[in-house]
Amino acid sequence: MKLEYNPRYPSVESLRRKAKKRIPRFAFDYLDGGCNEEVNLQKNTSEIREIELLPQYLKKHSYSDLKTQLFGHIYNSPFGIAPIGLQGLIWPNSPEILAKGAFNHNIPFILSTVSTSTIERVSEITEGQAWFQLYHPAENSLRDQIIKRASQHCPVLVILTDVPTFGYRNKEIKNGLAMPPRMTLHNVLQILGKPNWALKTLINGQPSFKILQPYMQKGMNMHHLGLFMNEAFNGRLDEDKISAIREMWKGKLVLKGIVNEIDVQKSIQIGIDGIIVSNHGGRQLDAGQSSIHSLINIVEKYKGKIKIMVDSGLRSGTDIARTLAVGAEFAFLGRTFMYGTAALGEEGADHTIRILQRQLKQVMDQLCCEKIEDLPKCLIK
Amino acid sequence: MKLEYNPRYPSVESLRRKAKKRIPRFAFDYLDGGCNEEVNLQKNTSEIREIELLPQYLKKHSYSDLKTQLFGHIYNSPFGIAPIGLQGLIWPNSPEILAKGAFNHNIPFILSTVSTSTIERVSEITEGQAWFQLYHPAENSLRDQIIKRASQHCPVLVILTDVPTFGYRNKEIKNGLAMPPRMTLHNVLQILGKPNWALKTLINGQPSFKILQPYMQKGMNMHHLGLFMNEAFNGRLDEDKISAIREMWKGKLVLKGIVNEIDVQKSIQIGIDGIIVSNHGGRQLDAGQSSIHSLINIVEKYKGKIKIMVDSGLRSGTDIARTLAVGAEFAFLGRTFMYGTAALGEEGADHTIRILQRQLKQVMDQLCCEKIEDLPKCLIK
Amino acid sequence: MKLEYNPRYPSVESLRRKAKKRIPRFAFDYLDGGCNEEVNLQKNTSEIREIELLPQYLKKHSYSDLKTQLFGHIYNSPFGIAPIGLQGLIWPNSPEILAKGAFNHNIPFILSTVSTSTIERVSEITEGQAWFQLYHPAENSLRDQIIKRASQHCPVLVILTDVPTFGYRNKEIKNGLAMPPRMTLHNVLQILGKPNWALKTLINGQPSFKILQPYMQKGMNMHHLGLFMNEAFNGRLDEDKISAIREMWKGKLVLKGIVNEIDVQKSIQIGIDGIIVSNHGGRQLDAGQSSIHSLINIVEKYKGKIKIMVDSGLRSGTDIARTLAVGAEFAFLGRTFMYGTAALGEEGADHTIRILQRQLKQVMDQLCCEKIEDLPKCLIK
Amino acid sequence: MKLEYNPRYPSVESLRRKAKKRIPRFAFDYLDGGCNEEVNLQKNTSEIREIELLPQYLKKHSYSDLKTQLFGHIYNSPFGIAPIGLQGLIWPNSPEILAKGAFNHNIPFILSTVSTSTIERVSEITEGQAWFQLYHPAENSLRDQIIKRASQHCPVLVILTDVPTFGYRNKEIKNGLAMPPRMTLHNVLQILGKPNWALKTLINGQPSFKILQPYMQKGMNMHHLGLFMNEAFNGRLDEDKISAIREMWKGKLVLKGIVNEIDVQKSIQIGIDGIIVSNHGGRQLDAGQSSIHSLINIVEKYKGKIKIMVDSGLRSGTDIARTLAVGAEFAFLGRTFMYGTAALGEEGADHTIRILQRQLKQVMDQLCCEKIEDLPKCLIK
Repeated sequence: MKLEYNPRYPSVESLRRKAKKRIPRFAFDYLDGGCNEEVNLQKNTSEIREIELLPQYLKKHSYSDLKTQLFGHIYNSPFGIAPIGLQGLIWPNSPEILAKGAFNHNIPFILSTVSTSTIERVSEITEGQAWFQLYHPAENSLRDQIIKRASQHCPVLVILTDVPTFGYRNKEIKNGLAMPPRMTLHNVLQILGKPNWALKTLINGQPSFKILQPYMQKGMNMHHLGLFMNEAFNGRLDEDKISAIREMWKGKLVLKGIVNEIDVQKSIQIGIDGIIVSNHGGRQLDAGQSSIHSLINIVEKYKGKIKIMVDSGLRSGTDIARTLAVGAEFAFLGRTFMYGTAALGEEGADHTIRILQRQLKQVMDQLCCEKIEDLPKCLIK
Repeated sequence: MKLEYNPRYPSVESLRRKAKKRIPRFAFDYLDGGCNEEVNLQKNTSEIREIELLPQYLKKHSYSDLKTQLFGHIYNSPFGIAPIGLQGLIWPNSPEILAKGAFNHNIPFILSTVSTSTIERVSEITEGQAWFQLYHPAENSLRDQIIKRASQHCPVLVILTDVPTFGYRNKEIKNGLAMPPRMTLHNVLQILGKPNWALKTLINGQPSFKILQPYMQKGMNMHHLGLFMNEAFNGRLDEDKISAIREMWKGKLVLKGIVNEIDVQKSIQIGIDGIIVSNHGGRQLDAGQSSIHSLINIVEKYKGKIKIMVDSGLRSGTDIARTLAVGAEFAFLGRTFMYGTAALGEEGADHTIRILQRQLKQVMDQLCCEKIEDLPKCLIK
Repeated sequence: MKLEYNPRYPSVESLRRKAKKRIPRFAFDYLDGGCNEEVNLQKNTSEIREIELLPQYLKKHSYSDLKTQLFGHIYNSPFGIAPIGLQGLIWPNSPEILAKGAFNHNIPFILSTVSTSTIERVSEITEGQAWFQLYHPAENSLRDQIIKRASQHCPVLVILTDVPTFGYRNKEIKNGLAMPPRMTLHNVLQILGKPNWALKTLINGQPSFKILQPYMQKGMNMHHLGLFMNEAFNGRLDEDKISAIREMWKGKLVLKGIVNEIDVQKSIQIGIDGIIVSNHGGRQLDAGQSSIHSLINIVEKYKGKIKIMVDSGLRSGTDIARTLAVGAEFAFLGRTFMYGTAALGEEGADHTIRILQRQLKQVMDQLCCEKIEDLPKCLIK
Repeated sequence: MKLEYNPRYPSVESLRRKAKKRIPRFAFDYLDGGCNEEVNLQKNTSEIREIELLPQYLKKHSYSDLKTQLFGHIYNSPFGIAPIGLQGLIWPNSPEILAKGAFNHNIPFILSTVSTSTIERVSEITEGQAWFQLYHPAENSLRDQIIKRASQHCPVLVILTDVPTFGYRNKEIKNGLAMPPRMTLHNVLQILGKPNWALKTLINGQPSFKILQPYMQKGMNMHHLGLFMNEAFNGRLDEDKISAIREMWKGKLVLKGIVNEIDVQKSIQIGIDGIIVSNHGGRQLDAGQSSIHSLINIVEKYKGKIKIMVDSGLRSGTDIARTLAVGAEFAFLGRTFMYGTAALGEEGADHTIRILQRQLKQVMDQLCCEKIEDLPKCLIK
């Protein structure tokens, strides 16, 4: 097997361990943790591993092709990079590192509303291919301004639906990463222990919500920032709000966080193009189902009626194969790519994409799947 | 998320760990342990976490209201504070701390017969809102005297039904907390290691069974106290004893510890107002079911015929939501509040109530439940 | 709860831990271990704990009576002491300690053919109440001589059926406790680390197969002893051998180790009085079922047709209640009593019987069972 | 139990632990590890242990005979030695050690195409009884030359079907054992820590692909070797390729790695003599089923239509009994024998065969199985 990547980090778990060593504890906790007792977080990864696939060996098979058509674009792989808020805090400049990696490998990168890079900059890096994920603001005027900017740069708009409230995350509350953020002595000591991260952060400047900056008062300190965030993003979605955006947005429109059948039906009625079945990586509702179980339920009834994608709990190319075999048409990974970037910096995106591709391709070769669409035939029920 | 509580203890587990550091080992063992091999204790917490709830996001939702009507009173939250015997031993003055907290937040506090505070004092603190839990004495005359006092102060009488015998608790037997209590050298050494606890205990005086004091001989030493307890509370309940109390008690009458259908039917026949499905926190019958499984069985057949509440195994607002979704109409937590009080002293009750409220409200926002009664619609079966 | 036993050892696990500290490693391994990968050993204890019982509280209940009639004798408790080979090696003189304890508490003690005490001595201690367990010899003449002696002293003969071969026990092979035993330097060093055990053993003399001595050549060394054992007890049982003993033996006849329905049917046809469902404590067939699962199967079809007892995997009074609720009519425990004796020496038998009684009685009080026969009504199916 | 082997290593796990101490880490990782997250590896061993067997004791039974007829040869035991690539790297000269052991005990030894010993040498040692396993080359001419040599020496040809790609094995990639192999400083340090292994390797010379040497350029360094391997063995099988070999090969023909029913049907149509149900020891498809589950499925529909053997996840004689009871007609073990050889060197093969035989025989004695074919009657369903 010819390697085109650093062989010291062949798995996502090896990247995770390295990331843990490289970044301050509060940043790792933020990236790694789930909400409440982390029941949902654990179910996400353990239940996806119960999915089994059946290989086939006595059959001609020229090549496993990872290419996947989605919303009129042919991507090189059936997976993309999901956003993580405050990404630049975890590793300096990580949104741009990841956007570049995604563009080079022709896979989708989704930019977060609360990103530390601007829409315009990321659009430039990705030659207009980046998707934009809207964290829906309380005020329609702010929403409209953000959507307008996104519409000039992004072919796909993803609306985040599963954050009517902030998740209750023990580690973030303890570390002061909840809103408003607190810079505690504890956190400062953690930073001093990670000089590599500290230096990079110094060079890149303190991360800030670049996309939102035009709408914030100048010179806000951390406390006021928290208050602004609390106010600006307080509220939840409903059919009317989604319909209004559907009217406004000419490109493809995707809802993320959908796991309830009623919400799927509404999405179809409103004319949404796709949904991302997700539980926000186990960070919002600790009593929720694992994403793979939600996916199984929804695919059974709605496949073909709306584009069904998935997110949450995937940590490998094998997991990507599992979700596609269950019936998802595209998979997104968030933490996985941030582990890679926190572990390997500039090379992290490229490395992580390569190992996921290789892992997925290896599974498809075993299953004798020439195309991504062949995977569901291999699911053991 | 605006915090109104100490962010260092966002979860019950963080309070439990702090409590373990603050109080002597024998007191922590008493609070934390279950009976026999602790099989029931483990099932309680693990099986409740298997309950899953389905969120809904595309729907208007103004506010998640925790208010719950119970026995003619509108409480601020659908949960209350269950009693723990010898509370004052675990943390000095804890019954009063908890009663005050409950009153301030308008949630029910249940005072134990074997409490270290008097009915009169707790009634004063709670302006007559505290419930009283009767540990049924062997002698009717003692019972009548206690009930008479309770009737002057408490709107609700809870009769503890699941203690026909003392639980067989390995740690308590070993530590000498069984009746009669033994003050071993081992225990004394443990106390010396916890100066904070020791000082508070010194200031508050040795905890004693304040409610029972009028009926005990003066100057009883620990050994005689044990003999008194053994004799005074030896025996079990039956329909006749319950019926007699029903005649006597004009307020609401609740039976706690009911898990058998036959007992539910008898309760209905006798005219009991409500039951608390409970296995005494895994402290009485190690071969028993988890409380959540008992609840599922009983709710299915008796919901609407008698008020069904629950207790045992709940450690979070998420767990409260799980039990209410299964069909309970109110939830009680005992250990959870004592972890809080042992960890944070005077502030413990307020803190623990706040985090449970916030956790529960966050779950309801995710589920799009405006009222407590909406929760059962969200249960994934 | 008035204690009549050492409160430092309230559970079998606490006795096991103490035993581990008191006796040489090879002796503890022999006592504690199972065969092969110990899969069966683990299933025995974990699957019995899955059995759940339903308490009842609103019912008159005068007293939980542990008395149980078995083979015309009324025992004080529904459990007895199962034999363990080489008992005297684990703790000096343990067969007599256990026989005495059993007699004092009026519960059955079963003496092993390979015991380190004689039938006559144990019969004297128990005033003729001890049962005898026949490890069936290869030669009929030896069998006849042993049975003849047993018939003069024991009301019940138990035939061990599940040892057509020695179990494959990794720890025993490694420690040289397999036949022939090896006294390795390793074992000697272990003995030196346990002076208490060594001294007792010195006082009591090297343990030997007292019952078999008359049939062995004098002055056999350990090597020749092994060869003798291998030859003398090589072979397996069949209907004819059992029928022959049935003819010979006027008392009650029990087969131990029966788990296969065909074997149960044959036992009934031959006129056997009872069977002990057992997998030899997980020491014979690692691929076998847990004893509780075997019991469930056999009770369903054969209860009432033959006396059904159980053994293997029980470690508490709660476990005894579980097996009786499933349908066993009597329970035996082997390791449990040896943990007690190895931990507490002379007091071990009395202590262990007392804690099991108290644990069982406490469960029955919770379940509102006045008699042992009431337990099956409490099984949750 | 008379031992004819070193009693310090009665179980495969004890050999595994010893092997871990004796050989360099990279070699142990290669032997011990599975692919990707090792989900399949874990399922293999845990799910096989869920299979339960029912003993029978009251029945005449003269002797448990392990002899098994397979492809016209009567083997002494129903198990054989599966190949492991690069065996000589794990322990010097291990293919010859294992071939000798297999021959002495009259059980099949399968020689790997990528073995470090030649076909001719192994055939000489086994007097023509060794089987040959073809790792199918990309080029037909290379295939034909290898098959021609094998046909002159081996009665059975096994075609490896489950390697259309190299497995994605984290530890091997990290250790540089992937193709092309890298000799890292890390690996060198590991070697220095294992002088025994290093000395043996020095004496035996650097291991190389002896069978393939005639087809490789002389003086290839490790890098070029890797490139050769990648090219020479790139590609997958199909019906045509298998049919072509079927035409060519006059002896018995077996396909290894078959788990898909479609592949079984094709095998029958092509005239294949037997299949080995296997998942390559959990080293190829992490999302695959455990081998025991694959076996259960295939035996149910195809038993009697083609010879069904099994491999992967077996670690004991008990496991062999489990697979035969499920319905396999012969079992192969790979890692198990290499643990033995790495632990005990020259004596490893003999020792491992003996303990497996003894374990299996002991199980059959308990089950009262006189012949291997009796095992399926003992399966508990």
